[in-house]
Amino acid sequence: MDLREEQVSCEYKFKGRIIKVRLDQARLPDGKIAGREVVEHPGGVTVAALTDEGELLFVRQFRYPYMQEMLELPAGKLEPGEDPFEAMKREQREETGTFAETYTYLGEIYPSPGYCGEILRLWACRISGACEMDLDEDEFLEVLKIPLEEAYQMALRGELPDAKTQIGVLRTYALVKDGKI
Amino acid sequence: MDLREEQVSCEYKFKGRIIKVRLDQARLPDGKIAGREVVEHPGGVTVAALTDEGELLFVRQFRYPYMQEMLELPAGKLEPGEDPFEAMKREQREETGTFAETYTYLGEIYPSPGYCGEILRLWACRISGACEMDLDEDEFLEVLKIPLEEAYQMALRGELPDAKTQIGVLRTYALVKDGKI
Repeated sequence: MDLREEQVSCEYKFKGRIIKVRLDQARLPDGKIAGREVVEHPGGVTVAALTDEGELLFVRQFRYPYMQEMLELPAGKLEPGEDPFEAMKREQREETGTFAETYTYLGEIYPSPGYCGEILRLWACRISGACEMDLDEDEFLEVLKIPLEEAYQMALRGELPDAKTQIGVLRTYALVKDGKI
Repeated sequence: MDLREEQVSCEYKFKGRIIKVRLDQARLPDGKIAGREVVEHPGGVTVAALTDEGELLFVRQFRYPYMQEMLELPAGKLEPGEDPFEAMKREQREETGTFAETYTYLGEIYPSPGYCGEILRLWACRISGACEMDLDEDEFLEVLKIPLEEAYQMALRGELPDAKTQIGVLRTYALVKDGKI
């Protein structure tokens, strides 16, 4: 079965600092035309960083779209032309003041593929050293450490709603249990 | 540390059939004003449905923002005023032609909290019966069954990038292993 849709037209409705929004017309598999709303995003990176004591680093941040504080893995978006791996290390350094010798790549995350084209890349690491934090001017956050087992139980109880964070915790738990990190 | 941000102003930039996009001005914890781009979404539902043979139901769909086919758990968005639990059962029925007697609620997923306000709710179930599929007019998809253990290994290899799908597979695997479903 051919599921492909083809772009017929494209109109930008909003160009912001972070996202762009398009309203396209697309040709469906049956030949009909339908509107497709698309959010464009430069892409993001995130890291599950383990301390020597087996704790995961989290950041607590206010998330404006939900008007609430959330517990998340350190993350950020790509600067124009930036390599994702370098961006991830930069975000880890800036938000948590830590770095690692080696990183395990855990793949891509598509947050909401029905209307959003963001690709988020996920790594896990064991922290090997400390450096200075360096937050953006409009960035306010607190760094927390949570033992991996406790974070895993929080994920199973539905207490880590942020998608990348829940995935990062579940995947890192599996890696550690399998002796792969 | 007070991390709260306050809405100062709000301007809708796009109102589509699925999403609305706002550009707000917000007061940061240090009193400064910054722009905040917000995607509003009616909310979604998704279900990890296990067959008698221990397979998970997936749907293969073309996802226009990525211009590629993806393997996902059955899912959909809330109709205006619709109860999330009823919406999930409706989507399961429409997309896979199955239903269950009991469902285990696995919590909320926030796909991309930096700019998006979507809340997606996740359930798991063991399928208890079959009914007729009933796809929307502009919906084209194929239903697939994948053994849970194989789906889990796909998730660990990074082959299930859709966030809700990866979370649903990892969580259902944990539920089954713990004898909780």
